[in-house]
Amino acid sequence: MPKVAIVAGSRSDEKLVNEAREVLESLGINNEVAFISAHRDPERLREYVLRTDADIFIAIAGLAAHLPGVIASTTIKPVIGVPVSAKLGGLDSLLSIVQMPYGVPVATVGIDNAKNAAILAAEVLALKYEEIRERLSNLRESLRGGVR
Amino acid sequence: MPKVAIVAGSRSDEKLVNEAREVLESLGINNEVAFISAHRDPERLREYVLRTDADIFIAIAGLAAHLPGVIASTTIKPVIGVPVSAKLGGLDSLLSIVQMPYGVPVATVGIDNAKNAAILAAEVLALKYEEIRERLSNLRESLRGGVR
Amino acid sequence: MPKVAIVAGSRSDEKLVNEAREVLESLGINNEVAFISAHRDPERLREYVLRTDADIFIAIAGLAAHLPGVIASTTIKPVIGVPVSAKLGGLDSLLSIVQMPYGVPVATVGIDNAKNAAILAAEVLALKYEEIRERLSNLRESLRGGVR
Amino acid sequence: MPKVAIVAGSRSDEKLVNEAREVLESLGINNEVAFISAHRDPERLREYVLRTDADIFIAIAGLAAHLPGVIASTTIKPVIGVPVSAKLGGLDSLLSIVQMPYGVPVATVGIDNAKNAAILAAEVLALKYEEIRERLSNLRESLRGGVR
Amino acid sequence: MPKVAIVAGSRSDEKLVNEAREVLESLGINNEVAFISAHRDPERLREYVLRTDADIFIAIAGLAAHLPGVIASTTIKPVIGVPVSAKLGGLDSLLSIVQMPYGVPVATVGIDNAKNAAILAAEVLALKYEEIRERLSNLRESLRGGVR
Amino acid sequence: MPKVAIVAGSRSDEKLVNEAREVLESLGINNEVAFISAHRDPERLREYVLRTDADIFIAIAGLAAHLPGVIASTTIKPVIGVPVSAKLGGLDSLLSIVQMPYGVPVATVGIDNAKNAAILAAEVLALKYEEIRERLSNLRESLRGGVR
Amino acid sequence: MPKVAIVAGSRSDEKLVNEAREVLESLGINNEVAFISAHRDPERLREYVLRTDADIFIAIAGLAAHLPGVIASTTIKPVIGVPVSAKLGGLDSLLSIVQMPYGVPVATVGIDNAKNAAILAAEVLALKYEEIRERLSNLRESLRGGVR
Amino acid sequence: MPKVAIVAGSRSDEKLVNEAREVLESLGINNEVAFISAHRDPERLREYVLRTDADIFIAIAGLAAHLPGVIASTTIKPVIGVPVSAKLGGLDSLLSIVQMPYGVPVATVGIDNAKNAAILAAEVLALKYEEIRERLSNLRESLRGGVR
Repeated sequence: MPKVAIVAGSRSDEKLVNEAREVLESLGINNEVAFISAHRDPERLREYVLRTDADIFIAIAGLAAHLPGVIASTTIKPVIGVPVSAKLGGLDSLLSIVQMPYGVPVATVGIDNAKNAAILAAEVLALKYEEIRERLSNLRESLRGGVR
Repeated sequence: MPKVAIVAGSRSDEKLVNEAREVLESLGINNEVAFISAHRDPERLREYVLRTDADIFIAIAGLAAHLPGVIASTTIKPVIGVPVSAKLGGLDSLLSIVQMPYGVPVATVGIDNAKNAAILAAEVLALKYEEIRERLSNLRESLRGGVR
Repeated sequence: MPKVAIVAGSRSDEKLVNEAREVLESLGINNEVAFISAHRDPERLREYVLRTDADIFIAIAGLAAHLPGVIASTTIKPVIGVPVSAKLGGLDSLLSIVQMPYGVPVATVGIDNAKNAAILAAEVLALKYEEIRERLSNLRESLRGGVR
Repeated sequence: MPKVAIVAGSRSDEKLVNEAREVLESLGINNEVAFISAHRDPERLREYVLRTDADIFIAIAGLAAHLPGVIASTTIKPVIGVPVSAKLGGLDSLLSIVQMPYGVPVATVGIDNAKNAAILAAEVLALKYEEIRERLSNLRESLRGGVR
Repeated sequence: MPKVAIVAGSRSDEKLVNEAREVLESLGINNEVAFISAHRDPERLREYVLRTDADIFIAIAGLAAHLPGVIASTTIKPVIGVPVSAKLGGLDSLLSIVQMPYGVPVATVGIDNAKNAAILAAEVLALKYEEIRERLSNLRESLRGGVR
Repeated sequence: MPKVAIVAGSRSDEKLVNEAREVLESLGINNEVAFISAHRDPERLREYVLRTDADIFIAIAGLAAHLPGVIASTTIKPVIGVPVSAKLGGLDSLLSIVQMPYGVPVATVGIDNAKNAAILAAEVLALKYEEIRERLSNLRESLRGGVR
Repeated sequence: MPKVAIVAGSRSDEKLVNEAREVLESLGINNEVAFISAHRDPERLREYVLRTDADIFIAIAGLAAHLPGVIASTTIKPVIGVPVSAKLGGLDSLLSIVQMPYGVPVATVGIDNAKNAAILAAEVLALKYEEIRERLSNLRESLRGGVR
Repeated sequence: MPKVAIVAGSRSDEKLVNEAREVLESLGINNEVAFISAHRDPERLREYVLRTDADIFIAIAGLAAHLPGVIASTTIKPVIGVPVSAKLGGLDSLLSIVQMPYGVPVATVGIDNAKNAAILAAEVLALKYEEIRERLSNLRESLRGGVR
């Protein structure tokens, strides 16, 4: 079974971590959570990224948010970045995550939108795993009626 | 073999379309190109998205860039959005693409960075296709020495 | 008698919907309200836009606000867009609504200013309906004295 | 027959004036052009707005763009504002036009997008004039095939 | 004796009006206050500006803040503009006030900084009135020690 | 006769200095020009400000534009600040000039708009000097017809 | 023993002053605190900067934040600038501090991040003082485990 | 003798590298240059930072500019960051560099201002090296007369 790694640099992002986790679990997708700072603990981050058997990463970070980019520079597995609105409404974090140079992309979702990171991870895994594709279709279907 | 659909809303984005295409072809990934405007031809866009056998979409758009989001609302396949710098340095396009609501994410890459969209598409496909994983590793390796 | 359709993508915009509605009703203009997400329920939105006998649309949306543009791409009736300040003070929503490409304009009003969307709808209808013109003149007159 | 007044504050905006004019003429809509500065010639602007028999205004202005708002404060006819990118990419002009207070809306279109102002004017007039509705439908139809 | 007119477009700016007034009164400068909306009551504003014997204007306004510019277009007396932070942190108001075209300047001070508008008015009057110059020097002197 | 001091921190701003100068001379207002950097030569700037018999200052500066504020902190004569668009379209300079703290205002005009600084200086001097008032009225009158 | 001078222009920045102080004291670095406004008390600021035996300055300021730049223009000792988020999320202050002209740099840290200014001061002093280098290594080491 | 390491992630920044180098050499400061991408070659960057005997780093980077932060996370030597204006006028790069989290500061200078990074490096080294202090004083003195 595939697995998603949710990584955050700070305990202050725990609420967003849990939001991503709940969406993944509602889709029956395995996940693991790690709190490692790209700036304060780069070696441990690198070891974790190389060691984990997760198939895809969700990286949640604010300010000069390097966490997603550092993970992306360590692996060729897909990395989904979630900007956090700590200062300037999250514009600093958004630009620090999305404007990656050629060769090392980060799949960026909306500011504070960890739930969409989980959906995107599921979409990616659904290319390979039929049962995720079905659960995702059901979830999308249920959202359709949401504001009826 | 998997396939990537590159969609742009305007012929003015053809240069970026070609940049994405060249990266995909250097990785041996099948692709097809479509020029369809989400705003001027929504029905044709919808039909195309539902009909194509592509596994993943790269959507390139400027201004109030709805193309990636409209594709994402029509399919649960992954959609990669490329903001184009037509006005305001591309900030309008970036925000129109990345700030999607819950349930319908777009994997956004940097402004005008169609080449990174192709790399990201390859990373996603590499989860399932061993030979893409290898070519991607080689490409990443070759970039490493780029500024030595 | 003419009718204005007020469309919002999310129940969280209900307060703005009501503000627009109250202004329309104070001017004696028929209206109907629909909550349909452009991203999560595009087909239902399309059907609604093609089916309704409303003459003009007010579309209220935040974030990557595609709702007004998707309606505008489905009809040639006038569409008035109201950006909502959910993130970044509403700058994301403003740019997603106002920067539409050639051929598919959205008449954009100020951030969170659903009341002005209603006034603008009335101004448009007043071109054809004498009684709306009169009520609008009276409203404008009453505002004149507002800060005396 | 209805008429659209295109107003610009400066000869430097003449190119955009002509773009709006050409779209209107392609749709067979009468129009007149006036160059009057809201800041340097407010009285003449006021007299012009009150005197003209135009049904709708397109106001094109850059910088601290007050022209559309000053027209809107003088009439209850619809006013369409076109921000011009003279400084800061046009962000100054966009905000000066769109953020109007309650009671005096300006229907704002994209930066430098005078052509869309003409389309929007046509959409408004099409509510009353059947032949404009038809020409507009044809124009929209022709755009559909534009990038096929 | 000289006089400063403080003009605001909305009662919601009354706090800033009072702050300017208190500074003027602490400097012994005559003042009068008027609440007139440039957008909703342009004629009354024009009459007021032409009729008052005030020497200088302080104009306080938010959003698409045209009030200072409209006053400046009606008189060649100096006009001091105070942007108000109603939306977007006041950036909309700042740009709407400061980016005036050639010939019709507005002396713009900081966002919500009505007190500085009063100081600036005093500096201007001090060129002509010796006693204001002295009081202003004393005020500046007292500020010097403020954070000792 | 009154005099205006035009101060710039760098020879690269000479074009704007000349624009201000020409407007002042067309109004028959005495002026002097000084190139002194607030950052590189603060003592000479201070001496100049205290020594000159100019009545009012026009300070032209880009980037972290402290020149107007440093002059304002040295004198209680009015200081008019002109932001220059060297980087970020001049937003850095605009904010560095306009956001002055209580007690030390700078009368800020538009980005690169040195000509408006000269007009504003004339408006201030016109409070005291009848002949400047007349020339300014004539200039304003001539602008009125500018786009007729 | 080396010493760091922490300077703020306003008592309203006292919380940030204390945060910097606590970090310095946890590293055993001497410090002194001064509250002097660059705009209201420039002479006292200049005297203080020339007189103090501190080796390095931390300057904390909001709005049009000239304090760090004025200190930098008075000395060739390193000056670390801390932007404060009083308005516009601190973007005004950040740009006023970081965009210094050639010859007079300010070492700018993040918005409201006075603690990082203290760390940076320690890093600079650690080039010369072995014991600071050790304490800094220990601090960095302890942060590493922070989110384990 | 001390040494400064100038690091850039891309050959496209070579002009700024040379500007920093020339300033350092005019001050007689040893330096070495390395082109290593933080994103494409993180391991080589890490090895370089740990191995070099340079005392201080100047890191030049555009877009999502992680280079300065990655160096800062690897060493406690001072790191000076130079944002590059590749997109959005360099705002993306500025925010990616300056908004570092607690414990890992980067001393940020102005956009494209590599020369000021060299001056700042010299100021830091001047705390320890008398001869650099003298040369820096002379340089500052010569700038003083620059616009006389």
